Amino acid sequence: MNDFKIPFSGRAHNYTDEEVKEVVNAMQTADTLTQGIYLERFQQKFCDYVGAQHAFALNNATAALELAAQLAQLNEGDEVIIPGHTYTSSAYPFLKNGASIVWADIDLNTRVISAETIERCITPKTRLIVVVHLYGYGADMPTIMELAQRHNLIVVEDAAQALGVEIKGQMAGTFGDFGVYSFHSHKNMSTLGEGGMLTVKDKQIANIIPMLRHNGHCSFNYEQKYYWTPAMGNVDLPELNGKPLFPNNFCLGEVECALGIKLLDRIDQINIEKRQRAMIFIDALADHLELEFHKVDSRRHNYHLLAARLTNGDRDYFMQKMAEKEKIQCVVQYYPLYRYDLYKKTGQSKAKCPNTDLFFDNMISFPFSHKLSDEQLEVIILATKRCLV
Amino acid sequence: MNDFKIPFSGRAHNYTDEEVKEVVNAMQTADTLTQGIYLERFQQKFCDYVGAQHAFALNNATAALELAAQLAQLNEGDEVIIPGHTYTSSAYPFLKNGASIVWADIDLNTRVISAETIERCITPKTRLIVVVHLYGYGADMPTIMELAQRHNLIVVEDAAQALGVEIKGQMAGTFGDFGVYSFHSHKNMSTLGEGGMLTVKDKQIANIIPMLRHNGHCSFNYEQKYYWTPAMGNVDLPELNGKPLFPNNFCLGEVECALGIKLLDRIDQINIEKRQRAMIFIDALADHLELEFHKVDSRRHNYHLLAARLTNGDRDYFMQKMAEKEKIQCVVQYYPLYRYDLYKKTGQSKAKCPNTDLFFDNMISFPFSHKLSDEQLEVIILATKRCLV
Repeated sequence: MNDFKIPFSGRAHNYTDEEVKEVVNAMQTADTLTQGIYLERFQQKFCDYVGAQHAFALNNATAALELAAQLAQLNEGDEVIIPGHTYTSSAYPFLKNGASIVWADIDLNTRVISAETIERCITPKTRLIVVVHLYGYGADMPTIMELAQRHNLIVVEDAAQALGVEIKGQMAGTFGDFGVYSFHSHKNMSTLGEGGMLTVKDKQIANIIPMLRHNGHCSFNYEQKYYWTPAMGNVDLPELNGKPLFPNNFCLGEVECALGIKLLDRIDQINIEKRQRAMIFIDALADHLELEFHKVDSRRHNYHLLAARLTNGDRDYFMQKMAEKEKIQCVVQYYPLYRYDLYKKTGQSKAKCPNTDLFFDNMISFPFSHKLSDEQLEVIILATKRCLV
Repeated sequence: MNDFKIPFSGRAHNYTDEEVKEVVNAMQTADTLTQGIYLERFQQKFCDYVGAQHAFALNNATAALELAAQLAQLNEGDEVIIPGHTYTSSAYPFLKNGASIVWADIDLNTRVISAETIERCITPKTRLIVVVHLYGYGADMPTIMELAQRHNLIVVEDAAQALGVEIKGQMAGTFGDFGVYSFHSHKNMSTLGEGGMLTVKDKQIANIIPMLRHNGHCSFNYEQKYYWTPAMGNVDLPELNGKPLFPNNFCLGEVECALGIKLLDRIDQINIEKRQRAMIFIDALADHLELEFHKVDSRRHNYHLLAARLTNGDRDYFMQKMAEKEKIQCVVQYYPLYRYDLYKKTGQSKAKCPNTDLFFDNMISFPFSHKLSDEQLEVIILATKRCLV
């Protein structure tokens, strides 16, 4: 089965000559290769781009979720509401930090959670909600924030797939207390395969993240007589609300940051191109009513992925024909988390998410990367038509 | 104080044209930018180079220490022996995992711990020793392993600074249960500023590290009917000795791995060149008996750093003259960990390490990177002579 004409690529986009040049330049000239000027510039430019107060570049988006889970200071027994239909990194850091999970169902049309599906999960123990802008579609944050504020809940916005997505004129990731972004190989913009960003609103939290990110390093809280006395710097245990937090090493290198700075100039264009092609794809298959897409021709969707639900017919038979006859590798994505062994073994298998189940069991994710040619896109469309008949 | 003629550089070496070309090639052609073929090749080549059974590339060496601490499955109250004179990442992951630390003193000549200084720290509660090959000098592993085996202790070898160092014909990092290596910006070989490797001996442990590294991903433990049923793969909770371990995301990107493969061809040469220059430096100052170096003209030392102890005279006065008059930035390194606020606040400030204290309070680390020119090296030597008078 490794002879796909069009595989589901592990990589979303190519690099321009200018981006390659920037990487080479940073390799050759950066004074330090980590925790230097490119990091600062990347974070500042990211803040400016999404409209965040504080942004911290990290080695990946899971690290951003780990930090959010740590900074939420959950207690044993606290409940966290998380979509059943999402990637595992959105969930397990909260389990690690002592919470138990209540799985929120998705809306069958948008494939993301809504104020309505979240509200059903709220109990007196609820402390936090993780909203995931899955597939690159921005969930209804204004309504969700209203609900969260009414119940005094922390909101983590997992915008790993939704960089540059706007919800009523505001960037995804900037509504909640924490915004999580990914520059992983699959994403619309990737910093050499791994990378992430955490944005926060609270200044007190922003102050301790550099220590949590970099092994507890900080300055001494007094003026040093010489730069080397009593040592070059301090290593401290950050505290929040009087409770200590252990540091980590979640640093992102300078070359990746230099590339990230450059890619921010192109992310809007990539998103536009992906959306335009998604429209072509969806429209070309409009007569096939049994294949249901989520069509959103606005900045609310960046079509990081292109997924459909087969509302009538045998999904597996379709997948099989696509793979074996057409040599096109479609995949299925976001196995309901409560079905995975990790969540079963940690007592998190209970869920009442009919839409999550229905969607996943009939979904098809097409091989839809930015680096596909127009010709390849056409090949997929024609093959899909043949396999639907 | 930012006008140094020779600053203590945050970066140890430059990249050759061939190394730059390799990075560009991986950027342009890698099929996926993470968890792909370069990772496998880097790990295999690393195993071949150091002579390890299993190697796992990670986002940094702290991640390797975090994994070692997790895999050691320590219990509350267990004691871990760690040198007082080392970088903080060698220590705090073990605190995080519930252990308390007993600080081992260094040998004043070698600046690393020995079987003798370790033995003094052993109690019935001791479970594990972290041996750090600090400055790039290989500690006496055969003797330490004998001691560890006698007391049934787990041995973590922190060879972050000692890649390519040989101890009686065997590579540093391959004696203990865990070997930790770093490719950080400061190190003799750096994968774009961040990167690390963990080597292990135990096959059962080796089997679960890929899951611990990558969000718990694994295959289903049965043959799938189609590649997509019931999902593309499983997410599981790894178990060791019947106890679960939470996964992490400690992945290193493909471009870094491609570069790492290339750098392994050059690490021996870099180590040789650093050692040769260290000999020149040490010999040039041989008449100044008050400046005590650790001179080892063999593969036992790679001179990642070049540190000396001022046995007679005022260290701070020397440092000040070097900085202000000569504009050369020496630094002091490895503040005894028990003096940092993090270790005070976690109850780990008790220590009986007179050599650690004596060495640190009189040490000077010269700006000694591989990318220094011969002329710059000569400038530092002459300045040192002037400041010692």
